[in-house]
Amino acid sequence: MSSFGTLFKVTTYGESHCRSVGCIVEGCPPGMNLTEEDVQVQLTRRRPGQSSLTTPRNEKDRVHIQSGTEFGVTLGTPVGMMVLNQDQKPHDYSDMDNYPRPSHADFTYLEKYGVKASSGGGRSSARETIGRVAAGAIAEKYLREAFGIEIVAFVSAVGKIAIPLHQTKTSSSAANDETDDYDSPVTPEYLKFLDEITREEVDKTTIRCPHAEAANRMSERITRARDNHDSIGGTVTCVIRNVPTGLGEPCFDKIEAKLAHAMMSIPATKSFEIGSGREGCKVPGSAHNDPFVRNPVTGKLGTSSNNSGGTQGGISNGENIYFTVGFKSPATIGKEQPTTRYDGSGGVLAAKGRHDPCVVPRAIPIVETMAALVVMDAVMIQQSRNATRNLLPNAM
Amino acid sequence: MSSFGTLFKVTTYGESHCRSVGCIVEGCPPGMNLTEEDVQVQLTRRRPGQSSLTTPRNEKDRVHIQSGTEFGVTLGTPVGMMVLNQDQKPHDYSDMDNYPRPSHADFTYLEKYGVKASSGGGRSSARETIGRVAAGAIAEKYLREAFGIEIVAFVSAVGKIAIPLHQTKTSSSAANDETDDYDSPVTPEYLKFLDEITREEVDKTTIRCPHAEAANRMSERITRARDNHDSIGGTVTCVIRNVPTGLGEPCFDKIEAKLAHAMMSIPATKSFEIGSGREGCKVPGSAHNDPFVRNPVTGKLGTSSNNSGGTQGGISNGENIYFTVGFKSPATIGKEQPTTRYDGSGGVLAAKGRHDPCVVPRAIPIVETMAALVVMDAVMIQQSRNATRNLLPNAM
Amino acid sequence: MSSFGTLFKVTTYGESHCRSVGCIVEGCPPGMNLTEEDVQVQLTRRRPGQSSLTTPRNEKDRVHIQSGTEFGVTLGTPVGMMVLNQDQKPHDYSDMDNYPRPSHADFTYLEKYGVKASSGGGRSSARETIGRVAAGAIAEKYLREAFGIEIVAFVSAVGKIAIPLHQTKTSSSAANDETDDYDSPVTPEYLKFLDEITREEVDKTTIRCPHAEAANRMSERITRARDNHDSIGGTVTCVIRNVPTGLGEPCFDKIEAKLAHAMMSIPATKSFEIGSGREGCKVPGSAHNDPFVRNPVTGKLGTSSNNSGGTQGGISNGENIYFTVGFKSPATIGKEQPTTRYDGSGGVLAAKGRHDPCVVPRAIPIVETMAALVVMDAVMIQQSRNATRNLLPNAM
Amino acid sequence: MSSFGTLFKVTTYGESHCRSVGCIVEGCPPGMNLTEEDVQVQLTRRRPGQSSLTTPRNEKDRVHIQSGTEFGVTLGTPVGMMVLNQDQKPHDYSDMDNYPRPSHADFTYLEKYGVKASSGGGRSSARETIGRVAAGAIAEKYLREAFGIEIVAFVSAVGKIAIPLHQTKTSSSAANDETDDYDSPVTPEYLKFLDEITREEVDKTTIRCPHAEAANRMSERITRARDNHDSIGGTVTCVIRNVPTGLGEPCFDKIEAKLAHAMMSIPATKSFEIGSGREGCKVPGSAHNDPFVRNPVTGKLGTSSNNSGGTQGGISNGENIYFTVGFKSPATIGKEQPTTRYDGSGGVLAAKGRHDPCVVPRAIPIVETMAALVVMDAVMIQQSRNATRNLLPNAM
Repeated sequence: MSSFGTLFKVTTYGESHCRSVGCIVEGCPPGMNLTEEDVQVQLTRRRPGQSSLTTPRNEKDRVHIQSGTEFGVTLGTPVGMMVLNQDQKPHDYSDMDNYPRPSHADFTYLEKYGVKASSGGGRSSARETIGRVAAGAIAEKYLREAFGIEIVAFVSAVGKIAIPLHQTKTSSSAANDETDDYDSPVTPEYLKFLDEITREEVDKTTIRCPHAEAANRMSERITRARDNHDSIGGTVTCVIRNVPTGLGEPCFDKIEAKLAHAMMSIPATKSFEIGSGREGCKVPGSAHNDPFVRNPVTGKLGTSSNNSGGTQGGISNGENIYFTVGFKSPATIGKEQPTTRYDGSGGVLAAKGRHDPCVVPRAIPIVETMAALVVMDAVMIQQSRNATRNLLPNAM
Repeated sequence: MSSFGTLFKVTTYGESHCRSVGCIVEGCPPGMNLTEEDVQVQLTRRRPGQSSLTTPRNEKDRVHIQSGTEFGVTLGTPVGMMVLNQDQKPHDYSDMDNYPRPSHADFTYLEKYGVKASSGGGRSSARETIGRVAAGAIAEKYLREAFGIEIVAFVSAVGKIAIPLHQTKTSSSAANDETDDYDSPVTPEYLKFLDEITREEVDKTTIRCPHAEAANRMSERITRARDNHDSIGGTVTCVIRNVPTGLGEPCFDKIEAKLAHAMMSIPATKSFEIGSGREGCKVPGSAHNDPFVRNPVTGKLGTSSNNSGGTQGGISNGENIYFTVGFKSPATIGKEQPTTRYDGSGGVLAAKGRHDPCVVPRAIPIVETMAALVVMDAVMIQQSRNATRNLLPNAM
Repeated sequence: MSSFGTLFKVTTYGESHCRSVGCIVEGCPPGMNLTEEDVQVQLTRRRPGQSSLTTPRNEKDRVHIQSGTEFGVTLGTPVGMMVLNQDQKPHDYSDMDNYPRPSHADFTYLEKYGVKASSGGGRSSARETIGRVAAGAIAEKYLREAFGIEIVAFVSAVGKIAIPLHQTKTSSSAANDETDDYDSPVTPEYLKFLDEITREEVDKTTIRCPHAEAANRMSERITRARDNHDSIGGTVTCVIRNVPTGLGEPCFDKIEAKLAHAMMSIPATKSFEIGSGREGCKVPGSAHNDPFVRNPVTGKLGTSSNNSGGTQGGISNGENIYFTVGFKSPATIGKEQPTTRYDGSGGVLAAKGRHDPCVVPRAIPIVETMAALVVMDAVMIQQSRNATRNLLPNAM
Repeated sequence: MSSFGTLFKVTTYGESHCRSVGCIVEGCPPGMNLTEEDVQVQLTRRRPGQSSLTTPRNEKDRVHIQSGTEFGVTLGTPVGMMVLNQDQKPHDYSDMDNYPRPSHADFTYLEKYGVKASSGGGRSSARETIGRVAAGAIAEKYLREAFGIEIVAFVSAVGKIAIPLHQTKTSSSAANDETDDYDSPVTPEYLKFLDEITREEVDKTTIRCPHAEAANRMSERITRARDNHDSIGGTVTCVIRNVPTGLGEPCFDKIEAKLAHAMMSIPATKSFEIGSGREGCKVPGSAHNDPFVRNPVTGKLGTSSNNSGGTQGGISNGENIYFTVGFKSPATIGKEQPTTRYDGSGGVLAAKGRHDPCVVPRAIPIVETMAALVVMDAVMIQQSRNATRNLLPNAM
């Protein structure tokens, strides 16, 4: 469906060629300062056309809050938000309309709904993400104000070029598995990097990769894809800091399960990894387990490594939550592709116009805001549990 | 929460040391033949103690259907199922209870609920999966009978040992990205393998890896972990065949998003990849796109490659759905681990008794049945749409 | 929350003084003809200011479809709809703002949210119903086209004046219960009336009571209330015809339970009665039971009386569903009311301006469209069950 | 579906002739003392066979907690509960099986599911309510311990015999509406009665009507119905005291809407009225409005009358919530009923054995526990809002 969340819930509407796209946010805490500018920040970061590396269409994407606030303060009632579409008319018919675009949603939307929208893939359009980003921006603001939670995403790989921080002896070693000498799969320097990275640093480059040398090579890779009338994929890594313990609901709504759901609902995603991820599955428990340590300042327990990615048994443990999302190369390319028309006849398709050769830089705010939606909902459910328990006469 | 699904919904209960574990399945189609034996098959495959590679505790795990069937036929009403716990008593107190076990859920459960269950991680126990497997076994049966859907999972990697079928020139090439000469990231021989693999072949080895040479090396790897009083992780790959087109709900409930949610809710999971997965994100669109071809027999459109993993825009396209799930090495190991007690004092923990050195063989039926739950719910929602649309006077 | 429904789901937003009110409708069947005019009809019937009997404020209330249709046909994607507010600014402060208005939601909204909206009761405003009516108008259209379902509501009582058709010997008899001679509590002539009444007949009078003599007396009663600067309550009865059998989900989502939920969520409602209602509870089973009869034309079973109101065990039986909803007298009256200010000091409140002395005529389209939402959702769930069952190889 | 609630959620299973009936309760606050005896109390009150006025079948109905507690304290994990069925076998076939019983669910269940259960109405059986009562008993306990909330239901009418406290000049006056002289529709003495009534007083008579004179007449009425091989309906009134303000979610989940949903999901219910109910709709706003008064002790605002029934705008205002539910006469009667067989042939049906001539005494604990489920869920949602808001830096 087009709804996400239990207590903090967003419902979105809109496709490419209708009047507007937008959302309704239910469950927003009352009494919070909120203006359109709070929301606009992430919408602007999401907007295409911000550099030569992304598609040059200039969408305005101004958000208009319809309800739920008065004098800049939330009422606790649903927040309606909308962004007008610039291009409200279905496009003119062309030969391209005879084709289901390869690896696009044209074919599956037609199979599902039995109606051919002029935009082809209907809600699979990237414009659909506007509603999520707007909702998530509200969640982000609350989490920052109430808990000091910081959510920072960045481009961690483009094609085969990755930030060279993650690798340990373990993962860089040969494919054989003859040794019993393992390091923790996530390096201390990478954990430190995750601990310190800021959105300001991320936004310093249009590629949104905060590692200068890798950023340069990624930009070149995207440029090469564009020059080839081709495209390229990549990964986005996101860290959530200052997370309270206790978030995530056993058994089906583990915090990593909800994050996976959220991330894999973003268009073009192919993979989700929490903490040490797939690489972490290659090492023994003795290398992967995160030993507990007592924080000398707070006296609270924490862990000295963080292969778990901030979650154990599906519940946040107070360490940084971090995860990596894979995005495939965009399906729309100028290069000629042999394929088949709806009527079964063969042909060759080559997309006209300019298209985004790589989505990962624009995906940054989408990943951050979807993460905020997950954490916000988990916070609200856990706050209910804490408050309800504390009302018991025998509560500790 | 402990519920999963919209129209076909399972709710589970139970932890390690209570009377029983079980579930209620809502939305089961009426008029379907269903006996306890239909459910028992997957529960038995899930059971520990089936070989020296998994934990030798012999749980009986007989399912008892409580309601929802009469004379072996489903009534359409909720199906209650339960499996008695053999060990119904909280265990005796020992020094181990002073420790939150590293990378276990002891600490997070206590933080979340404020109550220390004697079993430590409460619902994070593997026994919790019994309810899911029982429910998913019903879904599997329906999908097989109604659509001929086949769901087969197998162990695709243990430690660094993987089935050597997936690699292409692309993924096996060096980490630099200087060439523009790419193959499709998933090889035709791997797609053929996915098309033909059966549960019978999977179950031929206790490791549940249907590639004989890899299976041997995986078994050795697990044996080495056990002998080291250590553990090891791995991956499970699952293919779903004969899937109808149109499954998956835009935008948040894309079929891959629901699969990711389902898989990442299984204990010990670290990663989820659909189709070409994270490797697929490294190649250009021209190599990754799946061209359409007309099936000469049915006349329907299909795709000649399947990097998409059977889903485009979050909706099934009729090709095989396949995905890979990473499982970390089990956290409970006999090896000594320096860590910290609840009271903040340091110590060394070494688990007593025999523990499962690798979960992936036992995870096979859990992955299959969770996949069945996702597909079943998507089928029921799409069946409603199709039927509702067909009732319109102008329906095609 | 602000959402209603499972497969056909509406989420609404908006209060009195924000930019707009509106809704998102998920689950709309694709391929259905739908224009703004289809929705406007019921919004116009809902609009205040249609006669001297209701409040003379002239709201324009034009609906704007934002998404989900193309060339006048639904795409199956969410339908966003909005109606601009004419009065978008919070009103000027006055002495009335010092008072929580008696039997209004000013006090409870403040207690719930801790924020005082200038409109007082926030979402308790009658304008909130616009989103529901718009969504329900889509449901109505589908139900009419797919099943020939007709939903007609009418004013059945104002104050103590009721349509004189319902009474039987039973209910008109004295309060003692000495006799064992009972008639069926709902008269055949009333059932015939329910079978034949049309919206055209209902709309012939501004009071929307299709019984001419009662309508006159009701109008006089409302006029008297208005002249007294007072208000008056009443009841709305609604019949749903041509309902397929099998709607309603045991156990909690019985069709009458969902109707009760829907109706009691309309502002100012006090009671819900299905079929024979509270009067029906006064007679013995021998008088209340509805005997089965075979329809000589269709051969199907029906019932010769209909005290059940078209539902047995929470599931529709194919007979007309009918129910009655009680609406209290509007709380805002010009008459002076001794009451207390927020600060605890006593005072006298008298509302300024013109206010609606009776809501029941305007409630007609709200009751009808809320009924449509309930039936539509039940239809979609049951269509899924039917379709799913029919795919079983042994299906009858 | 068979689930009810959002954060405090019950899912039930079971019909008359299966192994057991039961439920899973999700969202139970951790750290609460809970034993089977806490639950058994209401199950025992619900049990048939407690007097000659109700059906003499002696069901044992012992509850067995399966999970979610340890050493008598809740863990916060799902609480599974089950009650064995004494009669686990489908009954022998008889001529009665050829008939859909009039005003029973036999016909509608067959239409809905296409499967004929031997018990006829499957989940429409009164045994289905066991799961709800067990779950609601937990909710009751929490509400009592955390808020001092008291929920007391009683029989307010049988047939035409009602407790003579409710009537005012208004409602007892003639059907004409010529006067403008109205009293508040609910008398102060009735409000006082609601304020003081206890379960102990209710249980003093088997009829569970705490008004001695009315109780006698009701018992006679039921005896007469039984002697006539007939049945009789009635009403149950329920009061909820010490309710915190702020419960109920605009717009669709108003507290009275959820109560209506809950009550109308109980088998055999025909009507729901909140506060002054349908009678209250007959009087002007000047008589119906509840003026605010300042509580001289607490300084908080309250209302001097309570026609609203403790809710305004769908949100609890801190006054007593009270409502009345109508139950029809049981459909199963020994008296001969002319009706029609499934095959369309006419016949005469007369139920064998002894049957409950009136359900209202046994409905008392069902109404109370369903009310507890509604209030508990609303409390948990509002606790989340309060806690979340209080974490904002600018929170009051």
